[in-house]
Amino acid sequence: MHSMSVLQPIGDDAAVFVPSAGTIAVTTDLMAEGVHFDLAYTSPYALGFKLVSVNVSDIMAMGVAARYLFLNVGIKRESELSFFDAFFDGIAAACERYGIALLGGDMSGVRHDLFVSATVIGEGTRFVARKGAHPGDNIYVTGCLGDSACGLAVLQKLNSAGQRAVLENTSCIKPAQGDVFLAIGMENVPWGDVEPLLMRHLMPTARSSAAIAPYASAMIDISDGLFIDVSRLCDESGVGAEVWAASLPLSSSLCGIAPLLGKDALTFAVAGGEDYELLFTSSAPPAELHRASSDVPITCIGVVTDAERAFVVVDGMRQPLVPQGYDHFRAEQQS
Amino acid sequence: MHSMSVLQPIGDDAAVFVPSAGTIAVTTDLMAEGVHFDLAYTSPYALGFKLVSVNVSDIMAMGVAARYLFLNVGIKRESELSFFDAFFDGIAAACERYGIALLGGDMSGVRHDLFVSATVIGEGTRFVARKGAHPGDNIYVTGCLGDSACGLAVLQKLNSAGQRAVLENTSCIKPAQGDVFLAIGMENVPWGDVEPLLMRHLMPTARSSAAIAPYASAMIDISDGLFIDVSRLCDESGVGAEVWAASLPLSSSLCGIAPLLGKDALTFAVAGGEDYELLFTSSAPPAELHRASSDVPITCIGVVTDAERAFVVVDGMRQPLVPQGYDHFRAEQQS
Repeated sequence: MHSMSVLQPIGDDAAVFVPSAGTIAVTTDLMAEGVHFDLAYTSPYALGFKLVSVNVSDIMAMGVAARYLFLNVGIKRESELSFFDAFFDGIAAACERYGIALLGGDMSGVRHDLFVSATVIGEGTRFVARKGAHPGDNIYVTGCLGDSACGLAVLQKLNSAGQRAVLENTSCIKPAQGDVFLAIGMENVPWGDVEPLLMRHLMPTARSSAAIAPYASAMIDISDGLFIDVSRLCDESGVGAEVWAASLPLSSSLCGIAPLLGKDALTFAVAGGEDYELLFTSSAPPAELHRASSDVPITCIGVVTDAERAFVVVDGMRQPLVPQGYDHFRAEQQS
Repeated sequence: MHSMSVLQPIGDDAAVFVPSAGTIAVTTDLMAEGVHFDLAYTSPYALGFKLVSVNVSDIMAMGVAARYLFLNVGIKRESELSFFDAFFDGIAAACERYGIALLGGDMSGVRHDLFVSATVIGEGTRFVARKGAHPGDNIYVTGCLGDSACGLAVLQKLNSAGQRAVLENTSCIKPAQGDVFLAIGMENVPWGDVEPLLMRHLMPTARSSAAIAPYASAMIDISDGLFIDVSRLCDESGVGAEVWAASLPLSSSLCGIAPLLGKDALTFAVAGGEDYELLFTSSAPPAELHRASSDVPITCIGVVTDAERAFVVVDGMRQPLVPQGYDHFRAEQQS
């Protein structure tokens, strides 16, 4: 893939490629054990897959095509070779999915925690920044929100049998589900009911922006929670926004599982983080946009305004949108 | 710097630049606490500077110009802000030295060891690989060999007063030397005598290849020791080599300090590692090459052959060049 452009693949002091488009986009992200992931329920395969996805998501948020991957891996000295192989199987599966080539990296043993980072390079003829939203533009998101955060909440409450089941079911790209139940709150929930949430956290897929980018005036990927990332896009664009809580896309899995945790689905959706969905603004007629992006589920969740700040309309009341979200939004419902 | 080419600097989902030359070279390298550095004698300033240098050295080894830097930093949660500031001062000093721009990165707290990695992107109209050496080409190195490894050996034997002196004298780009003596073996050595060795290990500078690259048939940077990297270049080029031990460039500092450690200067030079000097081959007439590279000290250390493997001529005897070097070369002298 892209072999015509790669003059020097992995194995020299540096990789060399011929740029094939007018602009180059570069992003880099790290994941540290004990901070970004817990090996009690994160398989090495899932970790490799997610590392690539979170970086590709940033490239997608620029509206360009992801092309090349570079890795840094600090692996625990006592790790077994099988751990290492599975991690690279996850990397390879993600590279195949996104059509990108691994061109280089560095690797070392470390004394304590596993530490991985990746750099992804993208190419395109134009790009979409966080800056560029205009009053009157509609605000859209791809996919559903909150699944990843709810999945994390489930994972953090699993007993050791549940953790083992998760590890076994995320050790390759097609989990063999079997007859697994997970204890969540007071209930035993079939694996299939909670799987979409767990997979969204453990092995998120980056959303392609190819169909969206031509229509987007501004774009960001939702990594730290909808409200935080709406605020960032507004700040960069120098605009306000009105977000309609009732319009936020919530999955049936989220709405089914969140109550078992004693949580509000909407709270996960606005403040959960790690959605890796795209948030973008567009002045295009909605019908035209929906036709063009027919392969990608998109939902209009609000409108860009010329106000000083962003607001959210929830339960019919217009209130300031607080970027911290999680602790503050609908606080009365959580107490 | 390069501001015309950078369309989106640090602060969006990814940085975006317009390629200014026909090829793009990318390298990435990591440094882990307890493996690559010891904070007992490595200042955060030196660490930041070295992280950039080791990556720029890889780009220089491709014969292209270094342009852009991306960082990943996993920093201990209990670290003081001053540690962090000094690390970035070292990064900034290196960026200024090499004329490169920091375009992005990611940062996180970690539970245990400090972990840093960098990706450097270079641009050029042509590049020089490890492959390309032809029988009859001369073999050259830049600078002197073994200083870094000898510096490391000194650092590993310092008492705590010595470690403090080193930390204080590598906290900025121009160390204030003062009246410092370091205990090495049975002697107290003035800071000035050992400083070049310590600095070569703690704050190496990458060697510019701009003047060399047009004449180089193959090139690699010496990061794992001369003999290992000679072997790599030969393997990639499908050639043999003859290296003349008596021609290897040794600094007066190395020749003065190595005996105090009970070590052979030549052993450091062939097997020490972390030299970050350039090893290259060239068919150009030596006089022409020396004139062209007048700003860079270069030394002819041997010749490319059509033999199956590489040899080293030492003390008048021709013997197989052993890539592991350190333990095997002149073993009789070390026992």
